Amino acid sequence: MTTTIREVLDGRWAAVRDEVRREMGGLRLDPDPDASTATYRAQVADAVAQLAASGRPRRGFPPAHGGDGDVGGVVTSFAMLGYGDLSLLVKAGVQWGLFGGALAALGTRAHHDRYLRDTIDGRLLGCFAMTETGHGSDVQHLRTTATYDPATQEFVVHTPEPGARKDYIGGAARDARMAVVFAQLVTAGTGHGVHAFLVPVRDDAGNPRPGVTISDCGVKAGLNGVDNGRLVFDHVRVPREALLDRFGSVAPDGTYSSPIDDEGRRFFTMLGTLVRGRISVAGGAGSAAEKALALAVRYGDTRRQFSNPATGEEVVVLDYLAHQRKLLPLLATSYALHVAQNDLVERMHELQEPGALDDERAQRELETRAAGIKAIGTWHATRAIQTCREACGGAGYLAENLLPALKADTDVFTTFEGDNTVLLQLVAKAVLSDHARRVGRLDPLGRARFVAGLVGDAVVERTGVRPLLDRGDLRDPAVQRRLLVAREEHLVASAAQRVRRGLAPGADRFAVFNGAQDHLLAAARAHVERIVFDSFRAVADRHPLLGRLLVLHGLSLVDADRAWFVEHGFLGARRTKALVTAVNELCAELRPHARELVDAFGIPERWLACPMLDGEHEQVAPVDARPAELSAVG
Amino acid sequence: MTTTIREVLDGRWAAVRDEVRREMGGLRLDPDPDASTATYRAQVADAVAQLAASGRPRRGFPPAHGGDGDVGGVVTSFAMLGYGDLSLLVKAGVQWGLFGGALAALGTRAHHDRYLRDTIDGRLLGCFAMTETGHGSDVQHLRTTATYDPATQEFVVHTPEPGARKDYIGGAARDARMAVVFAQLVTAGTGHGVHAFLVPVRDDAGNPRPGVTISDCGVKAGLNGVDNGRLVFDHVRVPREALLDRFGSVAPDGTYSSPIDDEGRRFFTMLGTLVRGRISVAGGAGSAAEKALALAVRYGDTRRQFSNPATGEEVVVLDYLAHQRKLLPLLATSYALHVAQNDLVERMHELQEPGALDDERAQRELETRAAGIKAIGTWHATRAIQTCREACGGAGYLAENLLPALKADTDVFTTFEGDNTVLLQLVAKAVLSDHARRVGRLDPLGRARFVAGLVGDAVVERTGVRPLLDRGDLRDPAVQRRLLVAREEHLVASAAQRVRRGLAPGADRFAVFNGAQDHLLAAARAHVERIVFDSFRAVADRHPLLGRLLVLHGLSLVDADRAWFVEHGFLGARRTKALVTAVNELCAELRPHARELVDAFGIPERWLACPMLDGEHEQVAPVDARPAELSAVG
Repeated sequence: MTTTIREVLDGRWAAVRDEVRREMGGLRLDPDPDASTATYRAQVADAVAQLAASGRPRRGFPPAHGGDGDVGGVVTSFAMLGYGDLSLLVKAGVQWGLFGGALAALGTRAHHDRYLRDTIDGRLLGCFAMTETGHGSDVQHLRTTATYDPATQEFVVHTPEPGARKDYIGGAARDARMAVVFAQLVTAGTGHGVHAFLVPVRDDAGNPRPGVTISDCGVKAGLNGVDNGRLVFDHVRVPREALLDRFGSVAPDGTYSSPIDDEGRRFFTMLGTLVRGRISVAGGAGSAAEKALALAVRYGDTRRQFSNPATGEEVVVLDYLAHQRKLLPLLATSYALHVAQNDLVERMHELQEPGALDDERAQRELETRAAGIKAIGTWHATRAIQTCREACGGAGYLAENLLPALKADTDVFTTFEGDNTVLLQLVAKAVLSDHARRVGRLDPLGRARFVAGLVGDAVVERTGVRPLLDRGDLRDPAVQRRLLVAREEHLVASAAQRVRRGLAPGADRFAVFNGAQDHLLAAARAHVERIVFDSFRAVADRHPLLGRLLVLHGLSLVDADRAWFVEHGFLGARRTKALVTAVNELCAELRPHARELVDAFGIPERWLACPMLDGEHEQVAPVDARPAELSAVG
Repeated sequence: MTTTIREVLDGRWAAVRDEVRREMGGLRLDPDPDASTATYRAQVADAVAQLAASGRPRRGFPPAHGGDGDVGGVVTSFAMLGYGDLSLLVKAGVQWGLFGGALAALGTRAHHDRYLRDTIDGRLLGCFAMTETGHGSDVQHLRTTATYDPATQEFVVHTPEPGARKDYIGGAARDARMAVVFAQLVTAGTGHGVHAFLVPVRDDAGNPRPGVTISDCGVKAGLNGVDNGRLVFDHVRVPREALLDRFGSVAPDGTYSSPIDDEGRRFFTMLGTLVRGRISVAGGAGSAAEKALALAVRYGDTRRQFSNPATGEEVVVLDYLAHQRKLLPLLATSYALHVAQNDLVERMHELQEPGALDDERAQRELETRAAGIKAIGTWHATRAIQTCREACGGAGYLAENLLPALKADTDVFTTFEGDNTVLLQLVAKAVLSDHARRVGRLDPLGRARFVAGLVGDAVVERTGVRPLLDRGDLRDPAVQRRLLVAREEHLVASAAQRVRRGLAPGADRFAVFNGAQDHLLAAARAHVERIVFDSFRAVADRHPLLGRLLVLHGLSLVDADRAWFVEHGFLGARRTKALVTAVNELCAELRPHARELVDAFGIPERWLACPMLDGEHEQVAPVDARPAELSAVG
């Protein structure tokens, strides 16, 4: 076996990763933590300008406009910035991912010809004005209006009420000259739903344009290198051509037309083209969690506390079982998510690269998977970084040791580019629709069998354990997968049945869905966790340590939901107690390799350097063998 | 019933709480989030001076030195600052709790006469130099030395190695003139363990004293109004009287004497007198969690997102089940911890108030309870504040809406004043010792029955459900308590048995304890959770809503560990599925009272005011009834 772990993790865009390591890995990206917000913003804006000058952002844009069309490469390259500075990642993401991406995906030839090169090169700085103060998750019901005036062939962009203010817009407070504004398109007195418009918001000198009021969101919990702001429009007129008209256009006389008749479907198709942003957030969160784990594992591998009475030597903290159980299952899950993210990026690349065929079904599947992995991955990052901070004690609380910025910067990832709870609802919706299609396709006999299956489930739940599933070694990934699949299928089928039954004629739809909300979210989570497990499993035979990490990851998943498995008869109570033992065993097996496993991420050393790791190779002299706190328990 | 919820929550020191509300509630304590660290530190130092001028810190000190001897009152009063600004709470805690507290508890008459009044009045600013870079949790093995020199009758305080540097010391970087330094006392070539010494670290002009090197820990994840620093001593000489000599003294000729012979016991007795700091941290964390819940519940009570297709009105987010399940069980647990904290403070007060009898057993119990409630309470705060931040979406990420500071400031609470994992080990140690005493006191027949009981347990686990426990309404607190008690007893007894069996002659003690570490931690947690539940239960009949909160809290505890209850035969699998339903029902019952329940904390309105709540009473017009995301699932 000659494959290294690094090769598996780096995946298809290994060369892109190495390029970032080579070209940027020597720079210190993290800011002076005592710098003012103004200074930090200026530094990040400079770094964005340097990125533009490097030409690297070209990679993601169509060749016709000077790009390389390497969609997967550019997302991979951005995610690498998550090992460095997340403000830079987000600021670059706003410029090229959100603004440039909307221009490319929602605009047509004329927009591309006129704006793309300047956007790629950073001469035109943009922002992405979707979210409003009153509408964050429910963006279909934004209140900003863009009303067509045939007399002048202009759109009038307007903020009709305080809640329609564009809010939290990255780039708006300081740098953006132009905004992609999402607004309700109205022509001839009729609304056609949300569309995107190019609206200049600042003049060349950086002053707000007439009718545009810009304010600053001020200091945030993190990401303070990004200038988030608010935009209010007072009857701002833009030419008819300002409409990004790939999915809907207005003729000079005001006639509206669209290749997609249904307004809802049109809107979600538009949103779907912007899936790259969500995938990039998942990638950035993954990098941040990996960096935190690298810091905590390296610290835990040399930090000593309390002495072993038998040897008199102080014990390295990662030798404590509780410390291993804190960090190593999270590390295994980070590996699984890393590989699942690679698969997601590859799938997006195949669907979006120049010349790819339109495949609406595949596109919907991609969006579902992106929503799910973003939700699960960003929650994982929040939990992992928090745990790593605590695992480093006081040192982890000091800005100089990098964990505080990781924690603060990633915190918003769970609620931006889609609130995680809302995203899991989208996943639930897709999974239930799929399920309905499958059941619908069954002939009457099949349908009867399907219903009988659910009844059988209920019987098993009443009587005890399903004999087939309650066998096999829980350390066997095939057994783990059977459990994960069974959970997913059971949750999806039972949620579908519950909703179907609830929706009797005259039923209160809201009450039915609301009452089933936790059930739906559990089904969505089970689906995503199974997908992530499958991604990791597909590569786990390429290196023995990957195999063990997969086992630990699978055990963690089953362990975290072991009450459910027992309650639904998938595991006997006695078996799940063996889970704890198995997790402990895997921790012991992986502990000697912990350092190697975090090194395999290939995070530039310069980006990890911090005082807490300065003494990494320092030897600590043994102290006298007084009983340590731990062993004093007896 | 005329008792209000507020009265129950305010408890014995209601008058103190009202005084803080009245006298400080009109001030805005939260700092400008864009202020530099230097400015913030200066502001907090000013606020400490104002507190000193108010005379309020006197409350906690002995009457003989101008105080009121109201130990419980002063801890209550400090905890109230957690609703305002946590930097101020910590900075005040360093001055009067840690520095003043050590002076009072470890010093004797001469120290009190000379320093207490100046300390109370803020003329003498101090810091508490215990933690070293290399020894945070294992403070018994600190490396700083204080070597007695009989020739000059001085101690020589010295930092012998880089790891012995005093680190993270609040007040050291900027303000402290004097430090209570914990160091290994050495006289006549013999070490007597860690003792505390008064060491001047700065002169009146604020410059470091000769031999003292002071550096700054710099920016931290939070609490940046506190000037944490590092102290290195190069053979600094202090007079013999600098030793705080209540538990150990050195005669002029260098002879050491102590009322406590055993060095370990002496050290832990000294530490025990400082329990007030740990209790204050638990109180501050509780206040912070309550403030976060108040912010999130009030926001969630007016924020609307997605429309109900039946009515066309946008739904208030707290009407979503998933949102209720996020916030309301945490609110119930905050209530339980609030009441348990009141009990803890009262018990401390009784043991520490002037004239209280020495009761070593009660003191040990207090320390165990303080350690446990601090650990469980600060983890709860971290989780609750994180959940509240996410529940407020983008608004929760803006500094102006107060949640970022709550999150950042409290984060270190899980690892300072004792790392939570280490604290739970202390609890485990105490609980197992108690258990051993109880078993040891049994006559041979009783002991045989006890062992048979455990064997019986094992039989039940193999065969299924314990019939007695698997009955009764899970919404009945008496049933809930039976389950919590059964879990605690089972975990403690089985952990004790495991350790006893493991410690056969020749066994590797470290391996035995390390292998059982998760078991010990689970036993400790079960013990603390039962204590907290009991505290809350004792007051729950004083108001109907308290009764419901208790039920929800109990359900949450059982639900969180339901796998364990099933695996050990305490609940049948079918019963635990009913838990989910019961939690949902309680959420629905409490939802209409959510606002009232957070108002009952009595947090000054000024301390909650933020832009996100400005529109609290704004009416939002219904939008057209297009299917909302949620109901689009069907």
